Amino acid sequence: MIPFPAPGFEDIKQAHERIRHLIHRTPVLTSRLIDQRAGAELFFKCENLQKAGAFKFRGASNALAQLSQDELERGVVTHSSGNHAAALALAAQSRRVTAHIIMPENSPRVKIEAVKAYGGIIHFCPVGLEHREQKMNEVQLETQAVFIHPYHHPHIIAGQGTAALELMEDAPKLDIILAPLGGGGLLSGTAIASKAMNPKIRVIGVEPTLADDGWWGFYSGIRQPAKAPRSIADGLLTSVGETNFQIIQDKVDEIMRVDEEEILIALRWIWERMKILVEPSAAVGLAAVMKFPRYFANKRTGIILSGGNVSLENLHFT
Amino acid sequence: MIPFPAPGFEDIKQAHERIRHLIHRTPVLTSRLIDQRAGAELFFKCENLQKAGAFKFRGASNALAQLSQDELERGVVTHSSGNHAAALALAAQSRRVTAHIIMPENSPRVKIEAVKAYGGIIHFCPVGLEHREQKMNEVQLETQAVFIHPYHHPHIIAGQGTAALELMEDAPKLDIILAPLGGGGLLSGTAIASKAMNPKIRVIGVEPTLADDGWWGFYSGIRQPAKAPRSIADGLLTSVGETNFQIIQDKVDEIMRVDEEEILIALRWIWERMKILVEPSAAVGLAAVMKFPRYFANKRTGIILSGGNVSLENLHFT
Repeated sequence: MIPFPAPGFEDIKQAHERIRHLIHRTPVLTSRLIDQRAGAELFFKCENLQKAGAFKFRGASNALAQLSQDELERGVVTHSSGNHAAALALAAQSRRVTAHIIMPENSPRVKIEAVKAYGGIIHFCPVGLEHREQKMNEVQLETQAVFIHPYHHPHIIAGQGTAALELMEDAPKLDIILAPLGGGGLLSGTAIASKAMNPKIRVIGVEPTLADDGWWGFYSGIRQPAKAPRSIADGLLTSVGETNFQIIQDKVDEIMRVDEEEILIALRWIWERMKILVEPSAAVGLAAVMKFPRYFANKRTGIILSGGNVSLENLHFT
Repeated sequence: MIPFPAPGFEDIKQAHERIRHLIHRTPVLTSRLIDQRAGAELFFKCENLQKAGAFKFRGASNALAQLSQDELERGVVTHSSGNHAAALALAAQSRRVTAHIIMPENSPRVKIEAVKAYGGIIHFCPVGLEHREQKMNEVQLETQAVFIHPYHHPHIIAGQGTAALELMEDAPKLDIILAPLGGGGLLSGTAIASKAMNPKIRVIGVEPTLADDGWWGFYSGIRQPAKAPRSIADGLLTSVGETNFQIIQDKVDEIMRVDEEEILIALRWIWERMKILVEPSAAVGLAAVMKFPRYFANKRTGIILSGGNVSLENLHFT
């Protein structure tokens, strides 16, 4: 695939103008106890409180806002096991557009329920890339719906970049900004926005060691193929997109990896101390801060808490 | 014991003036999805986001603010397995006052850690009323510290009533207001504030069926003795205090009981849909709304989410 051209900061500002009345301006929270524990000054951008429970609603809203009337009438389609699916369904519903969502059969219950609640039409397929693409072709042939890719289209990247734009406005003079790295939509948008607003800021992507194709790609200079990684950070299992890869090579300073146990510990700190629910994928930023304390010591660090969609059916109290 | 005189609404307003610069004015959140499911219009007062993670910080701050210099120098003491302990410790710490906390040995880890983090001095005792009182006498003899009771002193009740005061200001024209019922500090303060601000409002206390001394007392007119109840709503196990009982008899319209499974379902709705962490005790209000849908149908209902202190060490993702 030929990569799309990278969006610029101007595109992110325009995206923000376009979607600001549709999205929540999510709060930036701080925690004295977590700062004490981490030895840094942390600013958490709460995209878990975004509509549909994740930053993905920004990109989906921005992409949808740029479709023609004819395209809107045909509807939209995407494949996603998770937050992009719910976000696109909700964004489409609020414009009375049909959203077709292709999901693997083993998707988490809470994510399936969210897509249904937002009026999305779910097409289940067996697990695996080839089944997904086959189902995708079927649906597109039948409906002519427009494919809204989860992370590599410039409209999606520009939309996701608005989270960093708001964070930089609300928590001025950050030294470092951290975003989780999966397909790279959030990290590439974050890098474009934050480097434009402050060229000295360090931009760091964080991913699970068990799904570290981004780390290998970044330090080898060669984008890594999709694997079938397993991590509790189920939003970060996709491999980095082509457009996203180029932006990340160009603008990101560092990729850090965190282990499963480190993610769980960070997750517990956020839940217990901040009293907000985030999903494991959202906890990798704090996990990196806790793992590399000297890197972050006394630094004003922005952390994007990417989402809050967690299935709790197995939750027990003893 | 001779009950204390009940505080009036004037006391609650004064308490609010006294503590408003010390506390968080916690947000009132709404959820379209929960409203749809419950068939009511719900306004959640997020005391889980209060300092020390619960409404108890209001009462503790108000009580502390009315001690003499001599009393402050002697320090304060309380017994509590939970939120009152952490609240008093934090309120004392911020005034550089010593707080002695008597806790049963089986207290939840997160609550012990919170008291320690806030600088409280913990005195452990074996489980059971007689051990607690014995330890209490020892500490008081030794330190002359002032006993700050968790729920039945008028200063505590007035402080807890400030949560309802804020809720009524931020969500006008409520038909119903719900508060969890344990010792009765929150419910009695809520009743005084809300009936004064709107005599037509219905005030409802909710407790676990497994700890329903409040229900029995309310409908029999005779305060029930302490039992040793078991419920996941660990903040609601105490029996209703004498002063609290009289206020509740006088001003509360209804006590409702909810079962363990109902509490867990409501808890999951709040966590999954609102993306905030509350403790089981805080979920009883929504549990009542979901249990008695015709009672709440289309009613503007305020629900006090009392706290967010949960131990998560046994949390797993599958």
